Amino acid sequence: MAVGENILPELKPVSGITIGTANAGIKQTQRDDIAVVAMAEGSSCAAVFTQNAFCAAPVLLAWENLQKKPRWLLINSGNANAGTGRQGIRAAQSTCAALAELVAARPESVLPFSTGVIGENLPAAKIAAALPAALAALSEHAWEVAARAIMTTDTFAKGSSRQVTIAGETMTITGIAKGAGMIQPNMATMLAFIGCDAKIARPLLQQCLEQAVEQTFNRITVDGDTSTNDACVLMASGCSAAPEITGSCGIREFSGAVLEVCQDLAEAIIRDGEGATKFIRIVVQQAVTEQEALQVAKTIAHSPLVKTAFFASDPNWGRILAAVGRAGIADLDIDRIVMYLGDVCIVRNGGRADDYRETDGQRVMAGDEITVTVDLGRGQEAGQVLTCDFSYDYVRINAEYRT
Amino acid sequence: MAVGENILPELKPVSGITIGTANAGIKQTQRDDIAVVAMAEGSSCAAVFTQNAFCAAPVLLAWENLQKKPRWLLINSGNANAGTGRQGIRAAQSTCAALAELVAARPESVLPFSTGVIGENLPAAKIAAALPAALAALSEHAWEVAARAIMTTDTFAKGSSRQVTIAGETMTITGIAKGAGMIQPNMATMLAFIGCDAKIARPLLQQCLEQAVEQTFNRITVDGDTSTNDACVLMASGCSAAPEITGSCGIREFSGAVLEVCQDLAEAIIRDGEGATKFIRIVVQQAVTEQEALQVAKTIAHSPLVKTAFFASDPNWGRILAAVGRAGIADLDIDRIVMYLGDVCIVRNGGRADDYRETDGQRVMAGDEITVTVDLGRGQEAGQVLTCDFSYDYVRINAEYRT
Repeated sequence: MAVGENILPELKPVSGITIGTANAGIKQTQRDDIAVVAMAEGSSCAAVFTQNAFCAAPVLLAWENLQKKPRWLLINSGNANAGTGRQGIRAAQSTCAALAELVAARPESVLPFSTGVIGENLPAAKIAAALPAALAALSEHAWEVAARAIMTTDTFAKGSSRQVTIAGETMTITGIAKGAGMIQPNMATMLAFIGCDAKIARPLLQQCLEQAVEQTFNRITVDGDTSTNDACVLMASGCSAAPEITGSCGIREFSGAVLEVCQDLAEAIIRDGEGATKFIRIVVQQAVTEQEALQVAKTIAHSPLVKTAFFASDPNWGRILAAVGRAGIADLDIDRIVMYLGDVCIVRNGGRADDYRETDGQRVMAGDEITVTVDLGRGQEAGQVLTCDFSYDYVRINAEYRT
Repeated sequence: MAVGENILPELKPVSGITIGTANAGIKQTQRDDIAVVAMAEGSSCAAVFTQNAFCAAPVLLAWENLQKKPRWLLINSGNANAGTGRQGIRAAQSTCAALAELVAARPESVLPFSTGVIGENLPAAKIAAALPAALAALSEHAWEVAARAIMTTDTFAKGSSRQVTIAGETMTITGIAKGAGMIQPNMATMLAFIGCDAKIARPLLQQCLEQAVEQTFNRITVDGDTSTNDACVLMASGCSAAPEITGSCGIREFSGAVLEVCQDLAEAIIRDGEGATKFIRIVVQQAVTEQEALQVAKTIAHSPLVKTAFFASDPNWGRILAAVGRAGIADLDIDRIVMYLGDVCIVRNGGRADDYRETDGQRVMAGDEITVTVDLGRGQEAGQVLTCDFSYDYVRINAEYRT
């Protein structure tokens, strides 16, 4: 189940970044479940990680190694290596060491990433055994197969590409992501890997990534559960012929393209939210601060009652207004609130708008992409959150699947 | 669907408090949907209401009239009179005035309460027309029929009685409640009405109610959605032969019994949580403050992933630990966390306990009443929250029902 058609766009190769996948048999599946990413010498690498205090072993290790000029990513699906204690750290270290040995690199030049079941020991030996096949497959044209290798409960592969021209030279940015459940990212969502051929120093790259993530992945939610394994990586190979991106050269074009790629990936994650049948954009306007707008938007987005109403295509504005009311905004004047479902004004002065007709609300709700707009009537700031509905399939997927 | 057998206990009459119900046809149902409660002259009345900023018209009016020596409650199910703006206030006022006229009382001596669909206009004329029948039925023995009249998506009637002996005289406390969905009370849950024959001044009665509610209704959650109509009322008729309850006479016994009645009602609401198949007690211990313990317990209780795992009887401790990790506790040391499912130690040192066997976890999860205990290893305080699981039926009920 997913909202929309979701055809993977063409993922353009990024010069200086190669990817190889292989089947390590982590969950006895026939499809590839590990991916190795190699960055050209001189690459910069930025990353953000989950803010969950209970973060997985690979997150701890990747965070540590990020400062040590990484050249390799080692990603697996099927096992999150989370809740695995010291043994989990040792398992992550051993897979990094195995890759490092095969490519004659320092073990700390490898960043590990895992996604899948929590609380099971990582089958490090299986992963190590599959590494030669992944290395043999390294190619600049493997973004799509990698997007498939990192899937867990995802129903479609997620990717996005942009090209920008800077000083007459083309620069390519390509990213992939996996999502589906346990999605309320705080810093980054599940796993997203973005490569580009820009020449750019690490601090500026990190800043660019953090800004894009804050505007995109940190503004989506499927179920309000922040994962233990969230990570988003932005690699820059420096292989483009364009001049180096600096605070005064090309940064606007570059960061704009990174933002667009992140936005595409974040939207794809919501379209593939577990059991999703609706793609819902919640816009809160006229707030005192952007933070306040996001707080209200997230309270609406997390309400199981709002989400089940969307699943039922029911224009149940009372549930939305009840969520606004419990969002914890001091001195909220309900009488000033105006609410739209799509282009239909449904609430005015704290109650049903006089000219609202149920058939108009139902027309909007019948679509599979719905925008809810809430004007708080308090200020000038706005914020937006993307979410999906709550269906029988969400319950089925999470009752049957051992995360 | 509900957890356990849930046979309504005998609800003892409370001298000085009479109840009458009638069918006003608010939702075209054949069963009674309004209840009138009359308090003897000289009664004290305490109440707590929802903290939702978007609170319903009857809540606003009842809050105002609470200070004016109320003698009557007028309760309806089938319509929440919420999101109805100024028209809703007028409708609530008109039903209070209709009752006042029939009994020759001041309109402000009536407290109105409504529960049901949000955003529909209250059919005040229908309610007024049914009042004579409700008044004709007034009796001290109508607690059970009133418990049925206030039900919405509830699958069973909820009530509790206690008697205490003070200075050799028996005092009776009887309460009823309705619950089911939109349950994360903040001050009180949905509707609960408790009567007693104690002689007690209003300020002390209010204090006693607030303490009981904080320990009971404020520690349950079905779906994290705080209703617009929550209210909990404690009436004291003063008709018992026991001496007046004061800060130094009988308060311990009295407040203990009120707490027990509230606890029974709160537990019944969770057992009847929409679609519930499991009754779940989440105990967080060794916290620095009680607030911190409750914050962690509520984060676990609200996690859709934890709740769907319980529905599946899956001892998925990784999801519980992930919820602990995102609860927003500063400097949380995951390595110190110990977790039990029932009597089975499942997590130690941030990972699966060495001696844990999946079959032991599954044995606990197979029951329909489950206690999760989380030791944070940080301090001496504890807190407890009651919740239920998240099932297909929750989605069905809320997709089909217009709150």
